[in-house]
Amino acid sequence: MIILGVDPGLTRCGFGVIESEGTKLLDYGLFTSLAGTDPRDRVGQIAQNLALVLDKHKPAVIALERVFAQANLRSVMGVAQISGALMHLAFERSIPLQFFTPSEVKAAVTGNGRADKAQVSQMVGRLTGTEIPGPPDIADAIAVAICGSKRGAMGGTTAQKKWVAAAKAANRRIG
Amino acid sequence: MIILGVDPGLTRCGFGVIESEGTKLLDYGLFTSLAGTDPRDRVGQIAQNLALVLDKHKPAVIALERVFAQANLRSVMGVAQISGALMHLAFERSIPLQFFTPSEVKAAVTGNGRADKAQVSQMVGRLTGTEIPGPPDIADAIAVAICGSKRGAMGGTTAQKKWVAAAKAANRRIG
Repeated sequence: MIILGVDPGLTRCGFGVIESEGTKLLDYGLFTSLAGTDPRDRVGQIAQNLALVLDKHKPAVIALERVFAQANLRSVMGVAQISGALMHLAFERSIPLQFFTPSEVKAAVTGNGRADKAQVSQMVGRLTGTEIPGPPDIADAIAVAICGSKRGAMGGTTAQKKWVAAAKAANRRIG
Repeated sequence: MIILGVDPGLTRCGFGVIESEGTKLLDYGLFTSLAGTDPRDRVGQIAQNLALVLDKHKPAVIALERVFAQANLRSVMGVAQISGALMHLAFERSIPLQFFTPSEVKAAVTGNGRADKAQVSQMVGRLTGTEIPGPPDIADAIAVAICGSKRGAMGGTTAQKKWVAAAKAANRRIG
């Protein structure tokens, strides 16, 4: 099963695509936009790039990190704008979308829900057998994908299971 | 020139379409989604409906209200998610998107930047010659469209003028 993890953001948006069995890394990258340029273009271009990733890899699930309540408003809005565009892209393609808290992601990757960024990045490199280039947004996106994969492997919630089953069926019909 | 005003929100998203010369109301409505249902579906369905409005009326400009910094985080996130999806839709269609502050909208419609909701709603009804049904999200969306129209009529910024000219040229080529 192919899982796309995204670390959404307006300035830097990381993504990672994994094959859930064996944590095989299929693709990863970073989309960026310049502060001060037209907000429509910033969101639109990143969303267009994410659409290309979706259409190339046809993930069965998209995994996203839940936004911190304590983050600053401007950054939260950028994250939410990119997330909103991605939610629409996922909806159009009938791909289920799962949210995980930062501590769920850290625990899934390092075994410690309070691990720091460096530990997460290091474990992502070890699990995928790939030296992940900085900035951390890419490793974070792959970490979310791994979390989605482990949660799926462990069964997830009943709703998640239904989503995954429905997505698989839909992909089979389409592809 | 056709202008679409949107009052973005996850629970209630109002829209109004006006013909800028004479404030003629062409269309208006409200898209809603239920709290507690799948967030992907909530954003996706509202975005899909907004896409239908865009493709039906082919506005030259989309006008949006800038989000309050002081609003509560959950509501801001819903607004930003819908706005992000709409920004992508506008980008795909090369429709320029303009943001206005609440006081700019109130001033454009009532002449008073500190007018209350009832005054805005009443003036929107008077200007368009239409009794606008509640909830206020529809009147608010029409008010933003009227603001966009007046700002355009008064010239707007140089960047806005370029946007409008480019959008008109693009629409001519497409339609």
